[in-house]
Amino acid sequence: MSAARMQVLSSRNVRLLSCGRNEVFAGRSGAQRPGGDPRTRSLTCPPLSSSSSPGRALSSLSATRRGLPKEKMSENGIMSRAKVLTIDTMNPTVKKVEYAVRGPIVQRAVELERELSEGMKKPFAEVIKANIGDAHAMGQQPITFFRQVLALCSYPELLSDSTFPEDAKSRACRILQSCGGNSMGSYSASQGIDSVRQDVARYIERRDGGVACDPDNIYLTTGASDGIVTMLKLLVCGEGTTRTGVMIPIPQYPLYSAALAELGAVQINYFLNEEKCWSLDITELQRAVNEARQYCNPRALCIINPGNPTGQVQSRQCIEDVIRFAAKERLFLMADEVYQDNVYAEGCQFHSFKKVLFEMGPEYAETVELASFHSTSKCYMGECGFRGGYMEIINMDDEVKDQLTKLLSVRLCPPVPGQALMDLVVNPPQPGEPSYGSFIKERTATLSALAEKAKLTEQVLNTVQGISCNPVQGAMYSFPRITIPEKAVKEATEKGQQPDMFYCMKMLEETGICLVPGSGFGQKDGTYHFRMTILPPTDKLKILLNKVKEFHQRFTQQYS
Amino acid sequence: MSAARMQVLSSRNVRLLSCGRNEVFAGRSGAQRPGGDPRTRSLTCPPLSSSSSPGRALSSLSATRRGLPKEKMSENGIMSRAKVLTIDTMNPTVKKVEYAVRGPIVQRAVELERELSEGMKKPFAEVIKANIGDAHAMGQQPITFFRQVLALCSYPELLSDSTFPEDAKSRACRILQSCGGNSMGSYSASQGIDSVRQDVARYIERRDGGVACDPDNIYLTTGASDGIVTMLKLLVCGEGTTRTGVMIPIPQYPLYSAALAELGAVQINYFLNEEKCWSLDITELQRAVNEARQYCNPRALCIINPGNPTGQVQSRQCIEDVIRFAAKERLFLMADEVYQDNVYAEGCQFHSFKKVLFEMGPEYAETVELASFHSTSKCYMGECGFRGGYMEIINMDDEVKDQLTKLLSVRLCPPVPGQALMDLVVNPPQPGEPSYGSFIKERTATLSALAEKAKLTEQVLNTVQGISCNPVQGAMYSFPRITIPEKAVKEATEKGQQPDMFYCMKMLEETGICLVPGSGFGQKDGTYHFRMTILPPTDKLKILLNKVKEFHQRFTQQYS
Repeated sequence: MSAARMQVLSSRNVRLLSCGRNEVFAGRSGAQRPGGDPRTRSLTCPPLSSSSSPGRALSSLSATRRGLPKEKMSENGIMSRAKVLTIDTMNPTVKKVEYAVRGPIVQRAVELERELSEGMKKPFAEVIKANIGDAHAMGQQPITFFRQVLALCSYPELLSDSTFPEDAKSRACRILQSCGGNSMGSYSASQGIDSVRQDVARYIERRDGGVACDPDNIYLTTGASDGIVTMLKLLVCGEGTTRTGVMIPIPQYPLYSAALAELGAVQINYFLNEEKCWSLDITELQRAVNEARQYCNPRALCIINPGNPTGQVQSRQCIEDVIRFAAKERLFLMADEVYQDNVYAEGCQFHSFKKVLFEMGPEYAETVELASFHSTSKCYMGECGFRGGYMEIINMDDEVKDQLTKLLSVRLCPPVPGQALMDLVVNPPQPGEPSYGSFIKERTATLSALAEKAKLTEQVLNTVQGISCNPVQGAMYSFPRITIPEKAVKEATEKGQQPDMFYCMKMLEETGICLVPGSGFGQKDGTYHFRMTILPPTDKLKILLNKVKEFHQRFTQQYS
Repeated sequence: MSAARMQVLSSRNVRLLSCGRNEVFAGRSGAQRPGGDPRTRSLTCPPLSSSSSPGRALSSLSATRRGLPKEKMSENGIMSRAKVLTIDTMNPTVKKVEYAVRGPIVQRAVELERELSEGMKKPFAEVIKANIGDAHAMGQQPITFFRQVLALCSYPELLSDSTFPEDAKSRACRILQSCGGNSMGSYSASQGIDSVRQDVARYIERRDGGVACDPDNIYLTTGASDGIVTMLKLLVCGEGTTRTGVMIPIPQYPLYSAALAELGAVQINYFLNEEKCWSLDITELQRAVNEARQYCNPRALCIINPGNPTGQVQSRQCIEDVIRFAAKERLFLMADEVYQDNVYAEGCQFHSFKKVLFEMGPEYAETVELASFHSTSKCYMGECGFRGGYMEIINMDDEVKDQLTKLLSVRLCPPVPGQALMDLVVNPPQPGEPSYGSFIKERTATLSALAEKAKLTEQVLNTVQGISCNPVQGAMYSFPRITIPEKAVKEATEKGQQPDMFYCMKMLEETGICLVPGSGFGQKDGTYHFRMTILPPTDKLKILLNKVKEFHQRFTQQYS
């Protein structure tokens, strides 16, 4: 055996040795870390010269060189250095980030799936992930036309394939002609492909009954999340009581709280009115902003409409009131409108903030700063994996716009397949084109099924004593309130768990159903909820709802 | 005309009115901004209650309500509020970001392209963008096999099309089986698709001659940039002299400086040795870190190998020395290895940091923290638009790894088509498979052409008096040193421009060639360079190089 090969094997063995949890090097065991649990200590980073390590479990060895921390000799005689990057010395704002939609309960669901696949016995045959709005994973079919065009763009040799419809080919040609070298493999402009932004602008004009839209105000993004985080990033400044505050609904989609934590901005909660179907009260906005002015500088107001996780659809009147409030209080408006096609309830209709703003006349249309976000991930498309999206920016200061474009240029461009898909969403087959019929049929089928499932979910959940569910007017989720018996609350508290986390974790272990506890979205103290998607196929949804019902009854009985 | 329609038109007109540069509302004109040019003032955000606006060009009107800034009446009688978000009140760290690769010179190039297309007369017929490593935009063809699989994944109905080779179909099936609902439209796991991470791990093991790779250490990313920024984000903490410092080469790829500026980390420059073919000197690393310890906490060392913009390929010895240095100085190593297949010069070879680290034995293999980055954008693929990439993390603390996964989960997942493409790059056709022959042929053709163009570029540039170009050993760029006459330096300085920006801007206006000035990457004081990609097709590259030569001679004559 050659020396080099031996060396490789030797280091490989050592590597494997260090993979276990009980290894001699700094592992996951908090108990061995010097200075106790960092989560209960302040987060300031120790200066490099602090080399004392009281309580270190391993013997210290050799000199402290130029003030660097000591090295230590492990049991197998290998010199080990303290890690550069530890939980104590990492970015403290990152540690504050939480994202319940993919939190511990989902990690446990993945584990359970693995255990099932390894033949372990469980009280269920399948894990059903109703935690996330992931339509295709739940069996929703993609729109044929969209996928045909994407295939043509990926492999343009297919343009000569006679089985592809002409309108798919012409869309593909238009997209490819806008790409450098006619390839989706080229970078696009930082703001996104010109022709796609033009198509987005025309879509918005049609949607908003003729209100003008300038393609220069359109920025293509990597999903809506990317746009939202970028806008928040621009808005954050100041320190202490002048630090930027951002108003977000409670319950909220936890991207907002996560981004604000990471940016070190102040989260200002305004509570949606569960008693009035999760609607937004202006008096509550006023209370929230008044209180917040005492400790920060409120600069932005985030709205999610249709609501995630609430499923509420805002009335035109409400949107007008919000705009007036934002103008009066000088708040930058951020309208998360990714569920704009997901409106099911009778009497409800989607109104874009942009349209309402412009219909309120120049006093508002000229002054209120608005960013509106859309995505390929929701509505009837459900194409989450492509990470397509756009934002429209209204009344943004020109210099800030330059800064925005500069900032976006650092990450070069949003994924081009996602841009192509966004183009198809805003420029779908038109009457008279060969794919029009099948497109309408597929879209209608998906949206009708969602409407049916929204109703079904509300109905079944409301038959359960101790569960109370507002109508799912839109979006893709129900967010029912659940009664958790005192005894269960006590047991959860003793375990250091939120009561609804305790509830959902128990449901997962007993039924295989993966929901997200309300605490991950925020809720009024003393109330408990969970978020459940309405996405599973109707048959499966019925089974799921029945399992939830049975679990809730069992749980209530057990703890009462 | 209905009232609603009139309202729409009215606000539309007003909107248009406000789009111009001379509008009555806060525009781009710095002179009218209160308090002078913010770029020369400190960046602290004014508290909300500061309502005084000396020097405001517009008449103030109405009362200051609850300490909010005044409103103003414009000439057409519309009430205008001061904007919430202005250059003075936006995130100050974002303002510090610079990214030359898509900076002012590229914006001017886009303008020139538009002017040409509008029929304006120019001294050239075409703008040639040699500013960015955008292979397909320069005519490089995608790998057929990759695009076939992507088409199959996009539109799985093609799986029954007999014109697609079987190996493409089996790859597509494997990818789709790993996607929720067998659709690329589903979210993947935050860390990336499991099977893709397994393929990446096996690729790394093959590449590194058997050094083990654990798929748990692989994170799929949105291009390499995403991974690099994420890792830097984890590393940043501390204030003042304990603030995280990150060592980057000069010249560097400006993603690094941009990310550090945005994160508010300290940029520690170490200079590459132009006289020794842009190689890295350990003594220079030592100088840089010693000096930096006086004002910050150096925690990471970034290496770009093969070098961007230098084209240098590091020797095995150099990499060993760097690893020893990082261990000694306790620095987290970040190895940007996106050009790992782009090595052209005889005697040069790519050595991964991971392999060298593990061959140095357990003292290093067990302790040195390393993140290595790769991408679908470079090498022979050039698939920039798909934003595919991965990072491998070695010796990262387990708790930090949990935090990393949590942080990544907020943005849900990297684009799935990019993940699929990454999978194909690490798992291309194998001998005996139907696509093997054409794959090897296409890959070889692309890499041979690049090698030829690397040589050609160096040769032609070195025939020009006043231009001196190191061998382009690897990557996709030449970074020649240029002599700029004193008179030109003076004229540039008077214009407030960097001399090489002045030079490149002039070249763009006179020849249509778009290069990036060396000042955008960093260079020793008093030296000037430009970065030029070697990507144009050979014929075009020859024309381009001749134009550069002629321009340089003319420029030198004009200013001497």
